[in-house]
Amino acid sequence: MIIQLEKNITAEQRKQLEKKLGDIQYKANDVKTQFADYIVAVGKTDFDIRSIGTMEGIRDIHRVSDPYKLVSKKWKVNDSVIDLGDDVKIGTGEFAIMAGPCSIESEEQIASTIKHLKENGIRIMRGGVYKPRSSPYSFRGLGIDGLKMWHEQAKEAGLKIVTEVMMTEQIDAMMDYVDIFQVGARNSQNFNLLDALGKVDKPVLLKRGISGTIDELLQAAEYIFSNGNEKIMLCERGIRSYEGAYRNCFDVNAIAMLKEKTHLPVIADPSHGIGIRSFVEPVGLAGIMAGADGVIMEVHHTPEKAFSDGQQTLDYGQAHKTYQKFSKTFLLREEMKQI
Amino acid sequence: MIIQLEKNITAEQRKQLEKKLGDIQYKANDVKTQFADYIVAVGKTDFDIRSIGTMEGIRDIHRVSDPYKLVSKKWKVNDSVIDLGDDVKIGTGEFAIMAGPCSIESEEQIASTIKHLKENGIRIMRGGVYKPRSSPYSFRGLGIDGLKMWHEQAKEAGLKIVTEVMMTEQIDAMMDYVDIFQVGARNSQNFNLLDALGKVDKPVLLKRGISGTIDELLQAAEYIFSNGNEKIMLCERGIRSYEGAYRNCFDVNAIAMLKEKTHLPVIADPSHGIGIRSFVEPVGLAGIMAGADGVIMEVHHTPEKAFSDGQQTLDYGQAHKTYQKFSKTFLLREEMKQI
Amino acid sequence: MIIQLEKNITAEQRKQLEKKLGDIQYKANDVKTQFADYIVAVGKTDFDIRSIGTMEGIRDIHRVSDPYKLVSKKWKVNDSVIDLGDDVKIGTGEFAIMAGPCSIESEEQIASTIKHLKENGIRIMRGGVYKPRSSPYSFRGLGIDGLKMWHEQAKEAGLKIVTEVMMTEQIDAMMDYVDIFQVGARNSQNFNLLDALGKVDKPVLLKRGISGTIDELLQAAEYIFSNGNEKIMLCERGIRSYEGAYRNCFDVNAIAMLKEKTHLPVIADPSHGIGIRSFVEPVGLAGIMAGADGVIMEVHHTPEKAFSDGQQTLDYGQAHKTYQKFSKTFLLREEMKQI
Amino acid sequence: MIIQLEKNITAEQRKQLEKKLGDIQYKANDVKTQFADYIVAVGKTDFDIRSIGTMEGIRDIHRVSDPYKLVSKKWKVNDSVIDLGDDVKIGTGEFAIMAGPCSIESEEQIASTIKHLKENGIRIMRGGVYKPRSSPYSFRGLGIDGLKMWHEQAKEAGLKIVTEVMMTEQIDAMMDYVDIFQVGARNSQNFNLLDALGKVDKPVLLKRGISGTIDELLQAAEYIFSNGNEKIMLCERGIRSYEGAYRNCFDVNAIAMLKEKTHLPVIADPSHGIGIRSFVEPVGLAGIMAGADGVIMEVHHTPEKAFSDGQQTLDYGQAHKTYQKFSKTFLLREEMKQI
Repeated sequence: MIIQLEKNITAEQRKQLEKKLGDIQYKANDVKTQFADYIVAVGKTDFDIRSIGTMEGIRDIHRVSDPYKLVSKKWKVNDSVIDLGDDVKIGTGEFAIMAGPCSIESEEQIASTIKHLKENGIRIMRGGVYKPRSSPYSFRGLGIDGLKMWHEQAKEAGLKIVTEVMMTEQIDAMMDYVDIFQVGARNSQNFNLLDALGKVDKPVLLKRGISGTIDELLQAAEYIFSNGNEKIMLCERGIRSYEGAYRNCFDVNAIAMLKEKTHLPVIADPSHGIGIRSFVEPVGLAGIMAGADGVIMEVHHTPEKAFSDGQQTLDYGQAHKTYQKFSKTFLLREEMKQI
Repeated sequence: MIIQLEKNITAEQRKQLEKKLGDIQYKANDVKTQFADYIVAVGKTDFDIRSIGTMEGIRDIHRVSDPYKLVSKKWKVNDSVIDLGDDVKIGTGEFAIMAGPCSIESEEQIASTIKHLKENGIRIMRGGVYKPRSSPYSFRGLGIDGLKMWHEQAKEAGLKIVTEVMMTEQIDAMMDYVDIFQVGARNSQNFNLLDALGKVDKPVLLKRGISGTIDELLQAAEYIFSNGNEKIMLCERGIRSYEGAYRNCFDVNAIAMLKEKTHLPVIADPSHGIGIRSFVEPVGLAGIMAGADGVIMEVHHTPEKAFSDGQQTLDYGQAHKTYQKFSKTFLLREEMKQI
Repeated sequence: MIIQLEKNITAEQRKQLEKKLGDIQYKANDVKTQFADYIVAVGKTDFDIRSIGTMEGIRDIHRVSDPYKLVSKKWKVNDSVIDLGDDVKIGTGEFAIMAGPCSIESEEQIASTIKHLKENGIRIMRGGVYKPRSSPYSFRGLGIDGLKMWHEQAKEAGLKIVTEVMMTEQIDAMMDYVDIFQVGARNSQNFNLLDALGKVDKPVLLKRGISGTIDELLQAAEYIFSNGNEKIMLCERGIRSYEGAYRNCFDVNAIAMLKEKTHLPVIADPSHGIGIRSFVEPVGLAGIMAGADGVIMEVHHTPEKAFSDGQQTLDYGQAHKTYQKFSKTFLLREEMKQI
Repeated sequence: MIIQLEKNITAEQRKQLEKKLGDIQYKANDVKTQFADYIVAVGKTDFDIRSIGTMEGIRDIHRVSDPYKLVSKKWKVNDSVIDLGDDVKIGTGEFAIMAGPCSIESEEQIASTIKHLKENGIRIMRGGVYKPRSSPYSFRGLGIDGLKMWHEQAKEAGLKIVTEVMMTEQIDAMMDYVDIFQVGARNSQNFNLLDALGKVDKPVLLKRGISGTIDELLQAAEYIFSNGNEKIMLCERGIRSYEGAYRNCFDVNAIAMLKEKTHLPVIADPSHGIGIRSFVEPVGLAGIMAGADGVIMEVHHTPEKAFSDGQQTLDYGQAHKTYQKFSKTFLLREEMKQI
């Protein structure tokens, strides 16, 4: 059960409410976000919801049978919109493209990417400065210095930055230089990191785990929301399967289902999803038709020389065409809602 | 290596060719289809392909490194078209929709379905008369009598029939009453059935196995082709995964990849693919955008009363809208090839 | 619900029983096996089982809530024993080893294998004469002539034969030359083949599907049993997983669970299970400790020259040690039942 | 390539060595552990290993083609032994059992568990004080206070403690109260946590990821080792599969393979592995026969009242029998090495 409180609820009213929840043996979790105050109450007793709904100091009340609560569409039927400022929004019915290299490599690479993105009207740039790598001997990213260098150029160009944060200790240092914190697939159930990202006022792009279920993804998002941060996007990036012909199995089914289960925006990552350059476009198109609010994809001026993920990265020429197709497809999808 | 022979190749020329293949230690498999005569030669020696290509009686020769040969796009770059007669074709750049119930249930149900399909301009009707069921105590279909009853009505209405064949012994009896033999997921590697279907001149819709790989699907098709039947369509119908939120994981990645690996038409089955009625449409749309040449889907006048698969079956009203969206999406995809 | 009938039930008693089942809206399936007559009744109504149990002509009655019925341990708590004659039994508390090559290749190979098996006290020889192969261009086995040649030698040596049957048409021809019909993983849900094997009086070794569930395996066995053949063994042979380090994921969990769900003997196939020679032994040992009644494994005089599956095949020296370890481990397991 | 350095290598010798590695374009990673100093050099050039092996200041040199290096058996053929002090060792050929509740719940529960373990001769107690939970509203453990309470009793009883650490910030606070840091499946690729655990001198029990590959597990261990901590155990705890009959698919194949790929001890976790109480024993036995050096398992005085994981937890009576079977099985396995 989700109870949205009035901003001016009194201490006495709150006390009455807590007493009432205690009476029906519900455990109350206080949630205070950028936007509102809630109580998420969890319990098993059957009771008449009106006996709480009519109490003083309450704006709204909803039963939510899902294991996740605040991120459920059962409670909030209108889609959430993430506002990055400067008129960059995600989830509004405009299509969001986030593009850029797997790893931030150099000042020149940043400049080149920014030029490409500007020419194509892309407003959000992706790139990694902290890289989770299977082997400890692989390149692990340029770190905070790389981020600052990138931020300087991006800010000047009016581009927003989305980049991965790997541990709570990095959050503070990164805070001023990122517009969206990305949580990678391997950290999808790193609950301490999720707790910490719930405590900052900055959007989070949360990737599905390597073999994460849809429910686990939503519950991971619930960690962030219940700690105070409503600005969450979910990202489908392919799951592990027995099929060896591709890197991951991009799961369009999950996109279709997430759009019905949650009010949060859903982003498709076809680059990691299938992991093979020539299929990024059709798989991305499929993701859009299944309901994605945006796409995150890897581009590089010379993919075959990229420090990482070159095999799934588009060059500028390919990307230019792909962006157009993504946008046209999104438009048709929205238009077909009239049918 | 695939060698396409001249229709009028002489016995002597053929003998020379076989000798040559023996010399380079290649095993020759004679293949005679509805359309042409081939030799598929398999071996490991390195040799100059021109030394064979210039021999008498040969129309064409190709190296094919894939484990499958005749179904590979490396050999035949133009997409194959399946002609069902009466101007019903699959793989031409027109979108093919096959719709109908999971099981053929009664004369009335057939009549109702046909009326619905005609109103929507659908030319191919699906339905099962032999049903593979996990339990021996479940309804196993109306059998050959159901098929005859269905055929009578379908013929009159100008509709083509696609239905599952489960064993070689059924082929002869079904032959005159079907337009496309469907091979179900559980029989995807029933090699004797594939051999037998290779020996008839009737199109085959071959479903991917429950956990079949893309390569296994193509090699299963190779069984049919190498036995003499070139009229094959492949069908993606969802694979098994750890995710319990849906019935199967419809694999758009496979559709994108199949379209690059083979010249055979590829059909999407979103009904079995995700297995939940409300997601058949978005998943089907995704399949089209990933490259599918057609869709096969389940409709029923009263899905909740269907003998089987009701939970994934659309009613006529829903289906009417979905058909339109499928067609529009297909048109956009074709149009975007210009970009 | 399973109703075991008295052998001498009268027509009138049977009629009464059928009427009674009709009254409670249960669908009755008549099952007549080598050993007994049953009615398997499926329905949803709640009723007092005693009202049927006390009727005339009934020996025994059991409710079975599982989706499979006759193969369930809920009905038959004592383990079934498969008697192959000549004092070769499976499921008695003696350990059964079935060993031999993947493919029957030649008279010499048969002779060599038989000599090896006799020296090690193995009574059942495995080998394929009909080989399911992914590619139509691969070796598909010596067929019925190979089987006859093998049978001649095996009979003389007092060995029993287990070999795969791929289609119903092969059953009659093979009947006199095999002691156990094996159903391969790809045919695990070839329901027509299962039906047909239910109609012969010859033991069947039924392999789990490539991604078959435990329930599907039990229901496949139910097909055979309900058609009249109680002599069934189940075989765990590894399932498909995302892990690429081995061929299949041998599933000990399934063995432990099958032993609790069914009265049928369970056989472990570590050769296909992990698919790598050096791990056949530890994986086989694990299967025994999890509860297997026997092991089927591949041996060859020269594994690296085997026509198929060489990489997972033991040579005679290795096999000799492995048999001993299997037997010792089985003995300990049985002994520990006293704890 | 792994180069083990002499303890007294001179600065000049080291400089020569680094120069040499630079010449052949190998990247040198300095590794200093509790036991030795190494250089792990990664590169692609072909060179004569003797030209390095004969240099001054080097004790030992090995080529290691695996993606992991220091944890590979190719370099260190003798199994590593983890010494916990007070004569408690893992990996010596004595069998290690770690048992205890899923969650530490109360002083009484600790006391009861300790009594049970002492009676059964178990030296290592498991239990969670930081619990990774899918939902933020679930019980998340007693935290550091619970750990201190537990430690007090365990120390007095002479028991060693293994418990999960979820984030780097917890390490220091936990340091004095744990004997083994456990890394849970969800943190198996939390590389920052692995880095941090590599910097402490305390054994680590590293669990395989929920869908982690064997290679990923070994590379995760490499993170710990290459940061300076050689005291690592690996733990198989079941992987995700399509099969819904059990919680996870305990993977005996992985145990067999890990024992051949690495010198680190391997622990089986049948409780999470299959996740159903009545199958913990057979699955644990299977793990031992496949090669495990120890078992970690859940016991509770009243499993059905446990705060978490009750369905997979044994009570004391069951556990008492299971410990005996585990030990007997281990003894037989070791004894059979003579065959």
